[in-house]
Amino acid sequence: MPKFVLIFLSTFLLLAVGCEHEKSTNEKPNIILMVGDGMGVAQVTAANYWNPQKSNYYNFKTVGLMETSSTSHKVTDSASGATAMSTGEKTYKRAIGVASDSTHLKTILEELHDQGYQTGLISLTSITHATPASFYAHVTDRDMHEEIASQLVDADLDFFAGGGWKYFLERKDNRNLFHELGEKGYEMDSLALPSKLDGSKKYGSLIAEGSLPSKVQGRVDFLQRAASSAIEYFKKSDKPYFLMVEGSYIDWGGHAEDAEMMIQESVDFDHTIGTVMDKTKTDDNTLLVVTADHETGGVAIGKYYEEDEVGNRIEVPDTLGIQFNTDQHTASMVPVFAKGYKEELFSGVYANNQIYHKLMEVCKLPD
Amino acid sequence: MPKFVLIFLSTFLLLAVGCEHEKSTNEKPNIILMVGDGMGVAQVTAANYWNPQKSNYYNFKTVGLMETSSTSHKVTDSASGATAMSTGEKTYKRAIGVASDSTHLKTILEELHDQGYQTGLISLTSITHATPASFYAHVTDRDMHEEIASQLVDADLDFFAGGGWKYFLERKDNRNLFHELGEKGYEMDSLALPSKLDGSKKYGSLIAEGSLPSKVQGRVDFLQRAASSAIEYFKKSDKPYFLMVEGSYIDWGGHAEDAEMMIQESVDFDHTIGTVMDKTKTDDNTLLVVTADHETGGVAIGKYYEEDEVGNRIEVPDTLGIQFNTDQHTASMVPVFAKGYKEELFSGVYANNQIYHKLMEVCKLPD
Repeated sequence: MPKFVLIFLSTFLLLAVGCEHEKSTNEKPNIILMVGDGMGVAQVTAANYWNPQKSNYYNFKTVGLMETSSTSHKVTDSASGATAMSTGEKTYKRAIGVASDSTHLKTILEELHDQGYQTGLISLTSITHATPASFYAHVTDRDMHEEIASQLVDADLDFFAGGGWKYFLERKDNRNLFHELGEKGYEMDSLALPSKLDGSKKYGSLIAEGSLPSKVQGRVDFLQRAASSAIEYFKKSDKPYFLMVEGSYIDWGGHAEDAEMMIQESVDFDHTIGTVMDKTKTDDNTLLVVTADHETGGVAIGKYYEEDEVGNRIEVPDTLGIQFNTDQHTASMVPVFAKGYKEELFSGVYANNQIYHKLMEVCKLPD
Repeated sequence: MPKFVLIFLSTFLLLAVGCEHEKSTNEKPNIILMVGDGMGVAQVTAANYWNPQKSNYYNFKTVGLMETSSTSHKVTDSASGATAMSTGEKTYKRAIGVASDSTHLKTILEELHDQGYQTGLISLTSITHATPASFYAHVTDRDMHEEIASQLVDADLDFFAGGGWKYFLERKDNRNLFHELGEKGYEMDSLALPSKLDGSKKYGSLIAEGSLPSKVQGRVDFLQRAASSAIEYFKKSDKPYFLMVEGSYIDWGGHAEDAEMMIQESVDFDHTIGTVMDKTKTDDNTLLVVTADHETGGVAIGKYYEEDEVGNRIEVPDTLGIQFNTDQHTASMVPVFAKGYKEELFSGVYANNQIYHKLMEVCKLPD
């Protein structure tokens, strides 16, 4: 049979199969975006080395590298970095959900909410902090925590968990935002994650006045439990979901130039990736994207030395050491890992604002 | 029509098309492996930022991340790093083409040579240096330059260019390896790259006693010209080719903690990628893989500060600065970029010795 006939026939038949498939499912994909704040390639290497199990990064078949500059500064901050990812536009440092000219930008969470998605945010620090805020708030400066909190009341999230109850309960305007959220159908908790998840309610757990403890301060499995609870909650509904999970303190380990903190937070984030992979492993219609807003600390995973009896510095060949170049953010490209529905879109080298556009492409229903 | 019938028919027809295609071409792919010695993600970021044009890294759609440890040391060296890539087996530091038990390992260059490939190596430093040597030599220690040079005489390379003529001409055993290579059909040159490339000869240009100058020392476009010459030479034959090109001095910039050297060598390597892409852009049957053996310097691309009139350190927001954590290698994962024939095999997160296995998979003819 001539080749062009074969190609024509097989293309026709595959299209027929494709259309039938689309008609039968017609479901929007679930999106889980995990942001390791301050997590460059060195921090991922730390997770690979210090995780007693093989790290979950080895389970990703799709990898990208992403440049992170802001419009005002080559070295970005978390506000500008998260806003680029949440809105598709690069903006100035400290901006939350607004463009360089301060106009509001619709976020992916807001877009998907309007398309019928369930939405959720999880952070280790205040839910009003730069990374989670950039998905629902629109303010000109990241420090406007009380304004950001008041915008969360109107964001209509289905699930949120983190810290920062003081911005909801101890406000200059004396509003009690837990009360206002309660009137909107939320079960609010300032002590614990929800123990029973009733699909008919919305849930907000802000279990620290400001930020949760770090791992070295004794935090246990909050991030894994919160992610697990959110996914279980979303699965009670037929609606698709968008969930952002922030591993907040990889960044703080860099700022503190605290190797132990950076390692423990990187490993904890890796464990949370494992939890999310496990919870979604049978969900063909789910995409997991793991990335970072920027690198923090200019971290090197280098040689480890000990001093011998006469004070000479001796390399210990089977051990690694950590050095910090700075207590600031850096501009080194950050990794992107993707697994699941249309993961191949996240391969390659691109700018941070492409995360929004790629996610929107993933969620676009076929015409 | 029932779905399974459609799937069966289209699969059958596609297989028919595939077999017809394979029968009609049956050509082995050309492989170009470019190794940026010491090139981590920060060094790639430097190329992106300091290259006046948009860097060539943005043209890659396939990205991987690779761990680089050796069997003896978590922080590898160039010998062990290159041997893992060239032979598929991790080995100890300083090993060239031998396993942990010192047995010889057949390299990918040797495998492909035996399959009828043309082969070539390009380096900025001595052609007997760790990275190029690991593709044709088998010695227990990287410093055995004269032994490595004598093994090059028997390696039957078609094209090599770099430095290190002293190991061929000023030897303890008084052999003149240029003469011996000439007897084997080589046109040898110690002053220049070949000006005319006659497909009937083999070419060896070792144009420095040891190492070539760095960019800051005044090297012009050697790496681009050598890569370009090699590809033109190989294209005169119908045989497929394997070419390794080393950007040697990104590493040396790290060891010297010399930001200007690291930047200029990173940009020069990026330009060489551009040359190679340009020379092969119409070659469907060519795969380009760009990676590194390890990172050097624990480099951060961070904030750039100037002092104001009263000595305060002020961030210059539209400029980047470079800091080094160390003058040593580090263990941070290194990037892999792939473009062309079967590039998708190089996506994901894996160990350095997988480069060999992936390349062998690329070169495997269909059964």
